[in-house]
Order: sequence, then structure tokens, then C-alpha cells
Amino acid sequence: MRFEALCTGDELLTGLTTDSNTPYFAAKLFAQGEQLQRVQVVGDKREEIIRALQYASAEADVLIVSGGLGPTADDLTAECAAQAAGVPLVERPEVLEHLRALAAARKFALTPNNYKQALVPQGAEMVVHPMGSAPMFILKFGRCIAFFVAGVPREYRYLVDREVLPRIARMQTQEPHRIFRAARLLKTVGLPESHLDANVAPLAAAHPQVTLGFRTQAPENHLKLVASGATQAAANQALAAAEAAARTLLGEYVFGADEETLGGQVGKLLQERGATLAVAESCTGGRLAELLTAPPGASQHFTGGVVAYANEMKRRWANVPDELLGRVGAVSAEVAEQLARGIREAAGSHYGLSITGIAGPSGGSPEKPVGTVYVGLSGPAGTRYQAYSFRGDRDLIRAFSAHAAMDLLRRELLRPAP
Amino acid sequence: MRFEALCTGDELLTGLTTDSNTPYFAAKLFAQGEQLQRVQVVGDKREEIIRALQYASAEADVLIVSGGLGPTADDLTAECAAQAAGVPLVERPEVLEHLRALAAARKFALTPNNYKQALVPQGAEMVVHPMGSAPMFILKFGRCIAFFVAGVPREYRYLVDREVLPRIARMQTQEPHRIFRAARLLKTVGLPESHLDANVAPLAAAHPQVTLGFRTQAPENHLKLVASGATQAAANQALAAAEAAARTLLGEYVFGADEETLGGQVGKLLQERGATLAVAESCTGGRLAELLTAPPGASQHFTGGVVAYANEMKRRWANVPDELLGRVGAVSAEVAEQLARGIREAAGSHYGLSITGIAGPSGGSPEKPVGTVYVGLSGPAGTRYQAYSFRGDRDLIRAFSAHAAMDLLRRELLRPAP
Repeated sequence: MRFEALCTGDELLTGLTTDSNTPYFAAKLFAQGEQLQRVQVVGDKREEIIRALQYASAEADVLIVSGGLGPTADDLTAECAAQAAGVPLVERPEVLEHLRALAAARKFALTPNNYKQALVPQGAEMVVHPMGSAPMFILKFGRCIAFFVAGVPREYRYLVDREVLPRIARMQTQEPHRIFRAARLLKTVGLPESHLDANVAPLAAAHPQVTLGFRTQAPENHLKLVASGATQAAANQALAAAEAAARTLLGEYVFGADEETLGGQVGKLLQERGATLAVAESCTGGRLAELLTAPPGASQHFTGGVVAYANEMKRRWANVPDELLGRVGAVSAEVAEQLARGIREAAGSHYGLSITGIAGPSGGSPEKPVGTVYVGLSGPAGTRYQAYSFRGDRDLIRAFSAHAAMDLLRRELLRPAP
Repeated sequence: MRFEALCTGDELLTGLTTDSNTPYFAAKLFAQGEQLQRVQVVGDKREEIIRALQYASAEADVLIVSGGLGPTADDLTAECAAQAAGVPLVERPEVLEHLRALAAARKFALTPNNYKQALVPQGAEMVVHPMGSAPMFILKFGRCIAFFVAGVPREYRYLVDREVLPRIARMQTQEPHRIFRAARLLKTVGLPESHLDANVAPLAAAHPQVTLGFRTQAPENHLKLVASGATQAAANQALAAAEAAARTLLGEYVFGADEETLGGQVGKLLQERGATLAVAESCTGGRLAELLTAPPGASQHFTGGVVAYANEMKRRWANVPDELLGRVGAVSAEVAEQLARGIREAAGSHYGLSITGIAGPSGGSPEKPVGTVYVGLSGPAGTRYQAYSFRGDRDLIRAFSAHAAMDLLRRELLRPAP
């Protein structure tokens, strides 16, 4: 089966919005064993939409069309679909009823524009749904089945998951040579992309049923493994073998998989050990605490944190002596260690983690250029520090610093408790 | 002139990566007076790429093609371009020289794969550039001028800015009816998108040369104004008039424009007043401090912050009495006020800002469901609080809470100092 997508909307062609819908559908479709072959994006223009519908439906078996189903004048998709299919628009009573119920619930009056949403190409299958006013409809262009869905991401994703993909799955059961897939995203930290690539190079030959993909989401680098097989069990098995091999090759650089986050993994390790954590950060300005508290349940192991921007607050909240600050400067190994030790004591937690550095753009010097960062870690095994020099803008340096700190603690927690 | 784009790469059709290049080009092109008419995305398949090149170049005057210029086996773009144009591939010595210099500088040996990057369609204009190994090339398909650029975002953006857009600008000078544009992004907070839309509805009729676009970047809603004119001065003037009218209609909901951030604007207002700020946050876990310290120079007015997750830390860092916590609970108006007052005193700052709430997914109750948030503000004019009930997941509730707190302080700072 050939799969295509068509996205409509001027906002996609003027750079106002980025299409996040198609990647969402593409990833889910691929996991279901099929690959999107072509995407077209066109603006809110009748002739462009009609032509794109004809071009796609002439070859595709399945087409997903998004956008242009709203009530305003530039919502042209239903009209263009009717014209491309050579059928008239008809008013569907079930849609009218849905629109009236929606208006009553939200206490607004239906305008003439709203009624437009009940006009759909004759012969279309309707899917009225609770996520929005625009109904989804399904229309055949010759042998091509086209799903017309709203472009609002919340509605699009709902419809893809609940209506489009299940229908595709039913079509797949009739495919004689169906491909099954299984996928895993392995997430690494501390490993440049070129090294990740080189480290897993041996996988390709040993696991021919598995394709490798690389994605950088600074400061993380991700490896995607997608296994294909003639049955789901075969795909799962090929994936498991490749994943095990990849984890062996990458070792502790892999901190998690799929939806797991570095902050969440650190939390899980603390939880397993029944340990608590407090943090003291300077240049990252709260980012470290934010990442550690993003996962639900963080209050179980995260005691608290301070953003000790002014030196006075380093002294007051983490007991960093003025004498030390004067002697070695706030951005130093000694202050990183004392911040970690001091916050651990102040919060009465098992671990203390700290960051002090120069995120820039100003504040650098020849001895300590922008990107100089010290991370301190204090715990049952004592107190130590790690020095880094990161490159990039302020935001990137802050991001790399917070990840480096979490990773230092993560690796400590992977060791047996002292 | 008709403008089209073609993006190649299996990773775009399996959902591994999202194309951020085309929105970048589209926005810059639109600002330069032209609109992209169609985008095609295809995978790394010869027949798909050739067909897409032919389909686009048959109609477009200008085509930008990205991806597939690397050294690996699935980089097929140069080969497909030659085939679509009906010319042979030839080896270009200036590219070979560039590749050798690059390899020497980076201390790696050239592989046979690398030499492939010197093979380009006969007759192409070459643009060897320092951002990568793949040269950009320019090829004519009949009257269509096609720019072939690397898909790596860093290289793509560099080439679009320095090579592609200036060449398009030179082509525009020969256009008899050239359109000039001027754009402004107005950023609002605290105003639902439907209200934003309704508030600025009068603009459309009064400013026919200006188009309005809406974009939600929760918790913010943005209004994009794009003015068109026969000269740059006319476009600028139309934009200025529409922007002034929009600002009048939206009032204090507008916190900034274009690259300005809410954290940055709060910082600017504090700076103007020579005032300092400290924060105490609970459910937002550091996000408030992070947003306030993201702009460069935040250390001038941001004294410090605490993430008082455990009640013990609320007592120790912001002097919230155990008795109060026991009586009204950590998520309460009284505790929000005391957190703000206490952190202001502890840090010796002019203002103290606090957040306490339930970000979920657990921890809610019938009286205080998930999404219940209190913001406290303490300053020269006294201490007060504001209550909110947000909907959404944990991340969204944290995001809305931090924005609500910054906005409360921003509005306070817009008033005359007491």
C-alpha cells in the first residue's frame, strides 16, 4: 500500500507554524509497518488544494489530508474534495446536530459560518467526534481512501489514534506481505553524535532486519532502532537482540529509552536507594531543579533547591564562606564542592548537587572563558567535583550544564552504595 | 514568481525528525515579499526524488531542494538532479580541494564516499562554503532556478541567509510588481486565543494591507501582523499603524514583541526601577527562576530563588511557620503570601514572588483539585496573592503557573512606583 499526506494552510507556508502533525502520523504509521511515501503542503488556495488532492490520490492507496475544515472563509478543504471527486456538497444532519449540541454546551450561538461545517462531499463516511466542531470524513477517490482530519494538533492526534490508524490496521490484515515493526529509542548523554554513530556501527551488519536512525536533541543524542519482521513476534525478537547489542556497545552512556527522561531516571535511582537530593545552582538558574522535578512524584526524593545567583545567597543558603569566594571566585571547583556540601547539610538530604559556571554571553575571562562550568556532588561517599568547558550560546551552555550534573549523579547512583 | 520547496530524507517520513528548515526559509521568504506555494517531502528513493524535481520545476520559478547531499549511500540528490535535468555528473576540482582542506584541518582521511560529494550535475554553479563538506549547487531546469542545499539545519540556515535569499533579492529587483513586507509578532499572556482573535477582529477592515496570523505557544498566544506595500516604506508605515491599533485593542495583555520573552520583559522593568527580585516556588520546581534567569544580564536584578519542595524547606528558606502549614496547608493563599514575604526578607530584595500549587497528576482533592495554584507577590506596596485553576497535564500546569507569576509582577511593575 502506498501512503501519502497532504497538509493545507497558509500558516505552514509563511513560517508562522511548523507542521507537527505529519511527523506524529508518520512515526505511528511506521511503527505499524508502513511508511509514508510523500507529503505535500499547499496553502489555502482552491486550485492548489484540488491539484494536490488529484496528484496524491492518483497513486496513493491511503491519503491523510489535514487542515481547512474550520468554519472560516479560508477553510476550503471540503469544497475542494467534492470538486476533486466530482461530487456535490451535501448537508449532513448528524453534523448539524453535533454543532447545535456543542454550541448549547459552550453557550454560544451558531453563526452562518458554523453551518458550513455540515457541508461535506456526497458519499463521504462521517466521523463526528467530541474533540472539536469539524467532523472527520472519509472519501474514496477511485481506489484511494482519503481521511480528512482537522489540523488542530489536539484533534489531529485524537483522530489519528482513534479513527485513522485502526482503520489502516484493518486494511493491513488483508495485505499478503505485511511487514511488522517494533521500535525503541535509546537515549544517551555525554556522547557526541559522531561517536554514537561510530560506536554502534557494528550493529548494521549483525542485525540486518533493524534500521538505525540518529537524532540530536542537545544535550542528548538518541539512537532509534526499528526492527522489521514477517510477524510481530519476529520483529520484537529482532529488536530485543539489537537493543541488547546496542546497550552493550554504548554502556552507561544510555540513560533511558522511549519516554524516559534523564531527570526521571535520576529520580528512579534515588527512589530505589531510598535517598533524597537537594541542589544548589548558579548559572543554570533553576533549570537543574526544573528537570529533576518535572516527573510526577519528584517530591518523594527531591527535598529542595536554591538558585544562588548572588554571592550573598551562596553564603546564606549553602554556607559558602566569603573568604573562599574572594580567594577562588564563585566559578571554581572549591565553590562547586562547597555548594554541594552546604546544600546537602542545609536540606538534610543524602545527596547534594551543585552547578557554578559562566553561561555568557558576558562574564568570561581568558582563564575562565564563557562555558566554564563546575559541577559538585556531595554524598555518603564524600564530596567531589567535575570541570567542563561547553560551547554554544547561553541557553545551550545552561542545558549542557544541567545534564552534566544529572549525569554525574546518575553514574554515582549506578555504583553500589558505599 | 512561483516558489516551491522539496525536502528529501527517510527520517522525515518515519517521524524521526521534524523539518524545521522549511518554516525557517518560508518565514524569511515571506518577509522578503514572496510566498512559498508548495512543499513536497519524499524519502531517499531515486524515482521519488526525480519525479518530485520534475513536478516542482515544471511550474516553479525558484525551487529550494534540501537533504541528500552527504557522503553516504542514501544521499542521492546530486545524481537525481543530473538525471532530472538530463545532464551527466562531473567531478568538480574546487570541491575536491575543499574536501581535502577540510579533512586535513579535522585530521581525518578522505574515504571513497567523500569523493562522491565532488560529483555534481554538469553546468551547475557551485557554492563551496565553510559550514560543511557538502557544497551547495545551483542548477537550471528550463526557466526554474533550483538551489540545492544541505539538510543539516545549521548549514541550511547559513546557506539560506547568505546565498539563497540574496540571490532571490536580486531576482526581485527585476520584478515589475514587487511586493514589500514588514512583520511584527505581538506576544500576549493571560488571554485565551479565542479572545485574542475576537479582540483584534476590528483590525482586518481598518488595515486591509495587513494580514493577521494567530499562533498558540502555551501559555502565550501570539498575533502576527504582516503588512504588504508597493515600497518598503509603505509596508513599514502600514505595519506601524496596525501595530499601534493592535496594541491599543490588546492593552496590557501584550507583554512584548518578536524575540522578547516574558522573563526578559520582567527583568527590563525591574532594571528600569533599579529593583531586585527573589522567588520561592514549589510546584513549578525551578521553572520560574529558570525563565527569569534565561535572558543575559539577569544577575543584575535577580538575587536568587528557592525551590521549597519539602515543607521543612518552606520554613527554613522562606520562614513559613509550621503552624500555618498545618492549619491551611502548603497550597493556600496564606502560604503563597508568606513565601513571597519570607523570600523577599531572606534575600533582602525589593520584590518577592512565590508559587504554590498542585501540578498533578496526583495530590488533588475535591476542595483543591489538580491545577489549583496560588501566586504570592510581596513588594514595597505590600503583599497579596492571586488564585488560579489551570487545566492540563503536569507540564502545562507548571508552565501556566510560572507565566501567571511573572505576569502578576509585570503588571505590578507597569504601575507607578508607590
